[in-house]
Amino acid sequence: MYERSIQDLIEELSRLPGIGPKGAQRIAFFLLDSDMEDVTALADAIIRAKQTVKFCRVCFNATEEEVCRICRDTRRDQTKICVVEESKDIVAIERTREFKGLYHVLGGSISPIDNRGPADLRIRELVQRLEDGAVTEIILATNPNTEGEVTATYLSRLLSPLGIQLSRLASGLPVGGDLEYADEITLGRAFEGRRTVSV
Amino acid sequence: MYERSIQDLIEELSRLPGIGPKGAQRIAFFLLDSDMEDVTALADAIIRAKQTVKFCRVCFNATEEEVCRICRDTRRDQTKICVVEESKDIVAIERTREFKGLYHVLGGSISPIDNRGPADLRIRELVQRLEDGAVTEIILATNPNTEGEVTATYLSRLLSPLGIQLSRLASGLPVGGDLEYADEITLGRAFEGRRTVSV
Repeated sequence: MYERSIQDLIEELSRLPGIGPKGAQRIAFFLLDSDMEDVTALADAIIRAKQTVKFCRVCFNATEEEVCRICRDTRRDQTKICVVEESKDIVAIERTREFKGLYHVLGGSISPIDNRGPADLRIRELVQRLEDGAVTEIILATNPNTEGEVTATYLSRLLSPLGIQLSRLASGLPVGGDLEYADEITLGRAFEGRRTVSV
Repeated sequence: MYERSIQDLIEELSRLPGIGPKGAQRIAFFLLDSDMEDVTALADAIIRAKQTVKFCRVCFNATEEEVCRICRDTRRDQTKICVVEESKDIVAIERTREFKGLYHVLGGSISPIDNRGPADLRIRELVQRLEDGAVTEIILATNPNTEGEVTATYLSRLLSPLGIQLSRLASGLPVGGDLEYADEITLGRAFEGRRTVSV
C-alpha cells in the first residue's frame, strides 16, 4: 500500500518492543516530515550506541569501557553484590540511592517457554566472582514475576552452600498505590512480609 | 546515569511520537542486545526512506517518484478529489476500497494553538488543481476533531463559490461499537445524520 521505502521503514520500526503497526506508521511519517538533520541524528545515535557500548568484563553492565563505572568506583562496598536481570535494572536501583555495593547482570531470567535455561545466563561468571570470599552478601533483585522468582530460587539454592548472606527484594504494596486495586498475590505478599510498627 | 552514547540514544528515541522515556529506554536496550545487522537495517531504513521519499508534485502524497502512484493511475476518476490532512490518511481510505478518485494532502490542519493557519497548508495548490474545471466533486476528509472540522469549514467556505459539489465524511457510531459507550457528540451526530430505512 505504501511506497517500498516507507513500507520497509514501518516494518523495521514495528520490530521494536512496544511499537505496534499504527505506532510504526506514525513514527515513519513523523520522520519523513522531520529535517534530514534530525533524522540523521537518530540513525547515528542508533549506530554509535551499538558500536560503542560493550558489556563490563566484571559485572556485564552496559559500558563504553572495559570495566563499568560502578565496578571501577573503589568507594563502593565490594562485599555486596546485587544480582539483576538487565543493565537497565541497575539504573532503576541506583536512582533509589539505597545500595552502594556492586552489581551482576545475568542477561535475562530462566524461562523455559523462551527456551532460556541457567546456562544461558551469566551465572558461572557470578560464581567465579564469589571464589575469593570477599563478597559476604548477595541481593537477588530479579523481577518479581514468575521467571524472576524461578531465577532467584535457582540462584539461592546454588549459592546457599557458599555461606554467603542471601536476600531477595521485598514484595508488597507499591507506595502511592491503592489497597483496593492491588492484586491478591501482591496483597498476600504484603501480609506475609508485614513489619512490626514501633511506637 | 547511563553511558553517554546510551543516554544520547534514549534521548533521540524519546523525541519520536508515542514513545516516552521508559519506552525509549526499553527500545535502546533492545537495540543494544540485537545483532549489529538488525540495528544497521533499522538505521539504513530510516535514512533511505528520508532520502527516497518526496511529495507528489500534484497531490503531495508521499512517493518515490515525481508524481505518486494514484495520480499516475489513469483508470481513477479524475473528477473527484478527496482532501486529507496526511499521506497516511490516504492509505486508510484506500483500504476501504470505497473511493476511486484522486487525493489532495493538505499537510496538516488549521490549528491556532500550534500557530498553523490556512497559509501553512497546501490550500493554494488545491485551488490551482480546480482551475481547469475538470473536478466536479470534493470530499473533505479531514479528521473528525476540532482542527479537522475548522479546516473543513474553512475549505467549504473557500470552495463553495466554485460550484463544485462538496461533501464531508459522515460522523456517527463506529461499526462494532456499543451505543452505551459512545460520547454524546458522536451520538448526537449519529441522530442528526440518521438514514431512512427502506423495507
